[in-house]
Amino acid sequence: MGISIETEERVRYSETDQMGVAHNKSYFEWFELGRTEFCRKKGIPYKEIEAQGFYLVVVEAFCQYRKPLRYDQRFLIRVTLREATSKKVTFDYEILAQPDRFLVASGYTVHIATNVRGEVCALPGPVLERITSG
Amino acid sequence: MGISIETEERVRYSETDQMGVAHNKSYFEWFELGRTEFCRKKGIPYKEIEAQGFYLVVVEAFCQYRKPLRYDQRFLIRVTLREATSKKVTFDYEILAQPDRFLVASGYTVHIATNVRGEVCALPGPVLERITSG
Amino acid sequence: MGISIETEERVRYSETDQMGVAHNKSYFEWFELGRTEFCRKKGIPYKEIEAQGFYLVVVEAFCQYRKPLRYDQRFLIRVTLREATSKKVTFDYEILAQPDRFLVASGYTVHIATNVRGEVCALPGPVLERITSG
Amino acid sequence: MGISIETEERVRYSETDQMGVAHNKSYFEWFELGRTEFCRKKGIPYKEIEAQGFYLVVVEAFCQYRKPLRYDQRFLIRVTLREATSKKVTFDYEILAQPDRFLVASGYTVHIATNVRGEVCALPGPVLERITSG
Repeated sequence: MGISIETEERVRYSETDQMGVAHNKSYFEWFELGRTEFCRKKGIPYKEIEAQGFYLVVVEAFCQYRKPLRYDQRFLIRVTLREATSKKVTFDYEILAQPDRFLVASGYTVHIATNVRGEVCALPGPVLERITSG
Repeated sequence: MGISIETEERVRYSETDQMGVAHNKSYFEWFELGRTEFCRKKGIPYKEIEAQGFYLVVVEAFCQYRKPLRYDQRFLIRVTLREATSKKVTFDYEILAQPDRFLVASGYTVHIATNVRGEVCALPGPVLERITSG
Repeated sequence: MGISIETEERVRYSETDQMGVAHNKSYFEWFELGRTEFCRKKGIPYKEIEAQGFYLVVVEAFCQYRKPLRYDQRFLIRVTLREATSKKVTFDYEILAQPDRFLVASGYTVHIATNVRGEVCALPGPVLERITSG
Repeated sequence: MGISIETEERVRYSETDQMGVAHNKSYFEWFELGRTEFCRKKGIPYKEIEAQGFYLVVVEAFCQYRKPLRYDQRFLIRVTLREATSKKVTFDYEILAQPDRFLVASGYTVHIATNVRGEVCALPGPVLERITSG
């Protein structure tokens, strides 16, 4: 656990709303984007997990918004694995404005594993080992 | 052909951008929403077409934007079938601001049929008959 | 407080993802859509609050997903005001699959008021009175 | 004119739909993202154009979809300026699957300039010079 994976992005124009800042839903898309890079860096791309017939379904999602992000602002998505068992996986996120790594939002998502029929199942051992590898 | 199906919606806050108007991508979601209601009104809900193993894949999409739409504005999505053969289906759209049916955008989408493996195929006769029914 | 406002919607095709269900971000757009109807029913449309120079900024958002929602599924967005002071407003949400009002998700959002310069401020008394009216 | 600017991206999970491919609306977000990088590379970041009180409003958008793009697929957004006068700017786009630059979609957008009140106006000379610079 404990190892964080960082991905840099910029706020897209289509992610802003009429308040002139990134819309609250966008952060959940960024969390997901960070998870994709987390799994890739751990050597188990998320599409391979799905190719094996498993989904990491989101059962809880939370975000605390501290400061707004504006169009074209660079930011980091910092993903940390909080907990992972065969039954439940929890990721923590920080969104850091660049270039000074200023914390603008934080949150978490909780996931369970299902098979292609949508039935809850245990996350396969090899996948779990990869995700929790140092 | 010729028969138009109208669906009323309101601009969602999440569909606006920092220009203070509905984002250009939203119109393509509305076109799709109009198609869903078009198929339902014709007695062949789009989900049933997919349940039969066929997809109406978008191969072309066009929109002309005449006037902006703002948050919470009511509007009509007006869908008309322009052409439908077993090989190609074309829909025309008009977005009309409510309550006075003022034309704010128009466009079209062209579709081909594919099977679940993504291979181009003929649209089944019964589906075609429904879509083109008066 | 305590009074709930319900709005019925259908899952849009563009709201699904490759898992075949509504994407986790869509629920936050639905929460917002429910808030828009909540304010309208209370006699203070949200666009009027913004026209007066105030924003109800989201500072926390949470959703618990119990069952998936599929394309074209009808559902209710049920919004309840949990707490409202001049400094903070909290809404609770339930997403209920129709026609049998089956609970598929629940969540909340916490809001503070800001002026057009993004500075935290007190929510105007008349707005607060409307929102909390029975 | 003629000079193309390329930006590499990956298909986000939230950009897929239940057909298992990137949704047709996503291409218009990518076109916009490509325009942002085009303007930056030309030395006139789009946010600076807006900071000067001008918007490049989309009045037409078109996309032809040749092959689907799947989750996590890398692709290039290739933007070329087709035409630019003080009254109208047209961009052409190609979406190329990576790593082999396989053409999967192409399209264009037409823009006019407006001021902050939404009134059509001439694009300022210095902005036009930047955009059309070699």
